[in-house]
Amino acid sequence: MDHQGLEMDADALASFLATEFPQVASNFEIMRVMPMQVEVRMPVTERNLRPGGTVSGPSMFALADVAVYLAILAMIGPRSLAVTTNCSIDFMRKPAAEAAMTARAELLKLGRTLAVGDVRMFSDSLPEPVARASLTYSIPPLRVRNG
Amino acid sequence: MDHQGLEMDADALASFLATEFPQVASNFEIMRVMPMQVEVRMPVTERNLRPGGTVSGPSMFALADVAVYLAILAMIGPRSLAVTTNCSIDFMRKPAAEAAMTARAELLKLGRTLAVGDVRMFSDSLPEPVARASLTYSIPPLRVRNG
Amino acid sequence: MDHQGLEMDADALASFLATEFPQVASNFEIMRVMPMQVEVRMPVTERNLRPGGTVSGPSMFALADVAVYLAILAMIGPRSLAVTTNCSIDFMRKPAAEAAMTARAELLKLGRTLAVGDVRMFSDSLPEPVARASLTYSIPPLRVRNG
Amino acid sequence: MDHQGLEMDADALASFLATEFPQVASNFEIMRVMPMQVEVRMPVTERNLRPGGTVSGPSMFALADVAVYLAILAMIGPRSLAVTTNCSIDFMRKPAAEAAMTARAELLKLGRTLAVGDVRMFSDSLPEPVARASLTYSIPPLRVRNG
Repeated sequence: MDHQGLEMDADALASFLATEFPQVASNFEIMRVMPMQVEVRMPVTERNLRPGGTVSGPSMFALADVAVYLAILAMIGPRSLAVTTNCSIDFMRKPAAEAAMTARAELLKLGRTLAVGDVRMFSDSLPEPVARASLTYSIPPLRVRNG
Repeated sequence: MDHQGLEMDADALASFLATEFPQVASNFEIMRVMPMQVEVRMPVTERNLRPGGTVSGPSMFALADVAVYLAILAMIGPRSLAVTTNCSIDFMRKPAAEAAMTARAELLKLGRTLAVGDVRMFSDSLPEPVARASLTYSIPPLRVRNG
Repeated sequence: MDHQGLEMDADALASFLATEFPQVASNFEIMRVMPMQVEVRMPVTERNLRPGGTVSGPSMFALADVAVYLAILAMIGPRSLAVTTNCSIDFMRKPAAEAAMTARAELLKLGRTLAVGDVRMFSDSLPEPVARASLTYSIPPLRVRNG
Repeated sequence: MDHQGLEMDADALASFLATEFPQVASNFEIMRVMPMQVEVRMPVTERNLRPGGTVSGPSMFALADVAVYLAILAMIGPRSLAVTTNCSIDFMRKPAAEAAMTARAELLKLGRTLAVGDVRMFSDSLPEPVARASLTYSIPPLRVRNG
């Protein structure tokens, strides 16, 4: 695996998430981190299911959102203040019942102030993507701290 | 208030939600139901907060999603199988800390198979909208049941 | 009409468009300019029709795009470098044949670096909106020029 | 090249476009057609340029739109009535001046009534995508014609 250009690896990202976003960190597993790409898994829990045992829309949104966020942090280092400004999401197929989901996120742009990521989400046991999303993040300028 | 053309009022919608989506029903209060429009409130709970006390993105997505769903059901009656196919959401301002949110949803199209709704979301105490969203729902055909 | 807070009125916007974007200026008529809102009309021409005499999708995109651009310029003054970074558009109904279209654009956010506008598009003779769009513009920082 | 599963190849698509959409056919070149994928090129013309020589937003929208349309027709055969219901587009970089653009479209879903396509658009001479888009098409039901 090529770690060139990575500011944070999977362990560093997981620690950051656990510290900064304790409410959500346990919902996600960081599977792979590569330059401009991450793979994040969302295990099935009661909390994100809907009748029929399928994963809810808000849970899929959360998965896409965290995946792009982590892809950005992997490249620029820990900045908790990056915020989502836009998300467009297509729900294309019904997720498999009781199945975990995996998001593959790719950064298409990593600018000084805006980043754009593309995500495909898969349900375990289904070969075709269940949903796709694209997200824009606004990246706050780095402030130099004086000691 | 003009209830003309409504298949379900606020009470009927609340009962339906409590029965069909018990996991989420308690997160939302249906404030007003009018033809092609609803107003839904999301009280603040630990569950939908992020560091700093602001409402999370997935919670806002859930609010927009349920608001358009209820606006559709109010017009066509209880059909639990209507599903979101697309959502585009803009996060424009930071929600106020520890403040409930209110969504005002309006149906712009209610076709035989597709419905499109527009939502503006407000944070208590802030005059300007915090987020906007538009959602497309796919409406399943009515099946005639034989007695 | 309240012109308070407007940096440019309809005439100033039309002149700016004719000078900076001569290819497109003649396609649009600026009907009304108010704080955070504009109304722009697109007459029917051969160029933007499709078989059956309806307005094409790219023409509707162009109408929404120019309407939000003009709404921004009306508030901040002439800056040709504002650029669209995102657009989400829903085509909801078939436009009337051989009918002009009108866009009503409203700015929901006008920040220092990002602006978000919402647009509803109407076909002459149809009461309901034919399309809706939301657009994000990136606003370049003002540079002070030294003489 | 694997043509398995293709209802129309590049020549058939080009003929269909020239017959059904004569206004736009000359703006595009169909480069490659594969199952669920097409590559379409948009040469530079005066008509789709903006000041500075870059391709306009509406032209990029038109390119994405036609690319997904052709990808659908390649799979299901000639149906002029498929219509775009939603498009989300991100403009990420300034296209190169006076450079043609190429769209690579991929169908992520081809259902009975809805299709979803993903598009990345490249400017000749720039390695990174200039824009991305996702589009939903509504596919009309096939009508059986009586002889």
